[in-house]
Amino acid sequence: MNNFTFYSPTEFVFGRGTESQTGELCKRYGATRVMIVYGGGSVVRSGLLEKVKESLQAQGISFCELPGVHPNPIDTKVYEGLELAKSFQPDFMLPVGGGSTIDTAKAIAAGYYYEGDFWDFYIGKAKPVKALPLGVVLTIPAAGSEGSGNTVITNTRTHVKNGLRMPMLLRPKFAVMNPELTMTLPAWQTASGISDMMAHILERYLSNTPEVQIGDRLAEGMLLAIMEMAERVMKDPMDYDARANIMWCGTIAHNDTCSLGRQEDWFSHAMEHEISAEYDVTHGAGLAVIFPAFLQYASTHNPHKVAQLAHRVLGVADSGNPSHDALQGTMVLKTWLHDVLHMPVTFAQLGIPSPDLELMNTRLHKLKGEILNGYMQLDAAATLEIYKLALD
Amino acid sequence: MNNFTFYSPTEFVFGRGTESQTGELCKRYGATRVMIVYGGGSVVRSGLLEKVKESLQAQGISFCELPGVHPNPIDTKVYEGLELAKSFQPDFMLPVGGGSTIDTAKAIAAGYYYEGDFWDFYIGKAKPVKALPLGVVLTIPAAGSEGSGNTVITNTRTHVKNGLRMPMLLRPKFAVMNPELTMTLPAWQTASGISDMMAHILERYLSNTPEVQIGDRLAEGMLLAIMEMAERVMKDPMDYDARANIMWCGTIAHNDTCSLGRQEDWFSHAMEHEISAEYDVTHGAGLAVIFPAFLQYASTHNPHKVAQLAHRVLGVADSGNPSHDALQGTMVLKTWLHDVLHMPVTFAQLGIPSPDLELMNTRLHKLKGEILNGYMQLDAAATLEIYKLALD
Repeated sequence: MNNFTFYSPTEFVFGRGTESQTGELCKRYGATRVMIVYGGGSVVRSGLLEKVKESLQAQGISFCELPGVHPNPIDTKVYEGLELAKSFQPDFMLPVGGGSTIDTAKAIAAGYYYEGDFWDFYIGKAKPVKALPLGVVLTIPAAGSEGSGNTVITNTRTHVKNGLRMPMLLRPKFAVMNPELTMTLPAWQTASGISDMMAHILERYLSNTPEVQIGDRLAEGMLLAIMEMAERVMKDPMDYDARANIMWCGTIAHNDTCSLGRQEDWFSHAMEHEISAEYDVTHGAGLAVIFPAFLQYASTHNPHKVAQLAHRVLGVADSGNPSHDALQGTMVLKTWLHDVLHMPVTFAQLGIPSPDLELMNTRLHKLKGEILNGYMQLDAAATLEIYKLALD
Repeated sequence: MNNFTFYSPTEFVFGRGTESQTGELCKRYGATRVMIVYGGGSVVRSGLLEKVKESLQAQGISFCELPGVHPNPIDTKVYEGLELAKSFQPDFMLPVGGGSTIDTAKAIAAGYYYEGDFWDFYIGKAKPVKALPLGVVLTIPAAGSEGSGNTVITNTRTHVKNGLRMPMLLRPKFAVMNPELTMTLPAWQTASGISDMMAHILERYLSNTPEVQIGDRLAEGMLLAIMEMAERVMKDPMDYDARANIMWCGTIAHNDTCSLGRQEDWFSHAMEHEISAEYDVTHGAGLAVIFPAFLQYASTHNPHKVAQLAHRVLGVADSGNPSHDALQGTMVLKTWLHDVLHMPVTFAQLGIPSPDLELMNTRLHKLKGEILNGYMQLDAAATLEIYKLALD
């Protein structure tokens, strides 16, 4: 096991009706002027936004609003938010929504105190040293952004989707999580979110760092719980407890609970980012396409963790042949993603029958280097093969 | 799933050599005058105390020392510490040791700002509103006190062992955790610690709150990892990775990771506290005696969670008869505690062939009420039966 620091100081306030505590929580964390960030109509239609505003007003907290964040959040919305922040001068950010909304708010929080272009942070040209604090009201369990210091933004000029990781500076102070708010999510969005959180766990699970048995067991437990609850929630979207289990899994999948003491592998996420940056697909759906291909490739080239996953999570009996079992597990997972989550698991099913694999692959290695050095050593030929395995 | 708040803001700095960061961490959390609290000789003999002092000196932090904390920490040491604190006026507490040392430091931290007797906090007569902040250098993985706001102290006049739970006020700011420091622990202490942390998980697992599948899976994963690693560490005390896995399990067993959204059952702990308060036995050993008896009783009276444990963790095949499987699982665990950990699993093996069960039982219910209302409803007759099941 490698040395590690585990620091997850977000206060998670979880359960029915918890959104009414938003104002109180903002106040406790020092907010007096709040910028509310949100997406489209559902937050408004459901009455959630109104409730949040009322709870702010009840605490004497003033606020401004930045609506209109879209899935796959983009730089132009961040610039708009930074303009608004300049005039309103908030001392606290409050995204109400899912990962896109939170990531946009984090970008504004980091950019607020910076003289230059906030994008500098996302290309490693500069590092934020100060940021506005933020709290979150979560409505879509998926990205895990409510418990992480991570943010991902797409540059609309270059089509590059880049991430920034500031575990101390950009981790939310609190996250209000009411599973009831997720009951009206469309099935597609629910399923994409589940796909995303499963990928977050697998990226941590796929590691060559030996001897992190507790991390493996925690990750396997999360996957078992998610898969059991996903089957329920896809049948009955109003199943509160299934929603609750899934919502919490989405958070701990990404707050480092199962990352401890090992190198993670974020290259399937990176491979997906190229897909969604180019074709604007839903992130979780892109992952459902890439992940089985990634595991299939691993089954031949480095099967041991995939075989363990197959045995402990996917119901594959141990045949003594890791490659065989890994491949069988991959097929179980691929079928499950398709049959239970109704996710696309190939480019063709994603509606992109002829993707420009060379373009994405070139961008991928331009961004991440010649060799992706993670669970496997992947050069351009290897990643191209993985992209091809995802074709159909 | 019940509503819950999860808030675990301790910064865990884990791995080889991390004790050299102690001074730096103290400084980061605002310490200028530190009271070091520790137990007996091993912290001195190993050179750890010297290293910690050097790292404080390197940061210009002054300190005083309170040595001599014994296992099953007692009120008189707290009074001694409070006297010392009055003259030295520390602004930060730094226990270096295991649960007893940390719990003593927490009691001093809470008592420091209180005019009355610190024991008032432990009998519910008063509630601390302010406490000295504390950081921890952990040397014995067991109690989980490094990641919790809990402290347990024994009153030497009344033989009552009472707890105080202040998740916000008494949770350590940081915990330095170097598994190497645990390699020289005697086998008995290693095994007692493992027994203690397994009990912490089981107390959270045994719950009637339905639909917390993720909490169950996390708890099961922790138990699987602990049992695998325990077998290794009992064979080879110098097995770093086994030590590391166990050390981290001890923390997450008690920092609420697997408590989310359900009522816990702390009555086997309470039953053990009566044993160690009366007979001054090692807490983990007392738990190894009480827990199998508790599970055996549950196998008849409320088997469902014990049966699930048997199926998912203890290798018992599902026979369709929960009571049968629960009892079989109990026996597997009891045998494992005895054969692998070399723990006593009966009062007789604990060296108390004729314990005063009536006395302990009376004290238990005087402290906890007529009915212990947890995973089971236990009146005095029921707890007496459990004590009796532990006789031999």
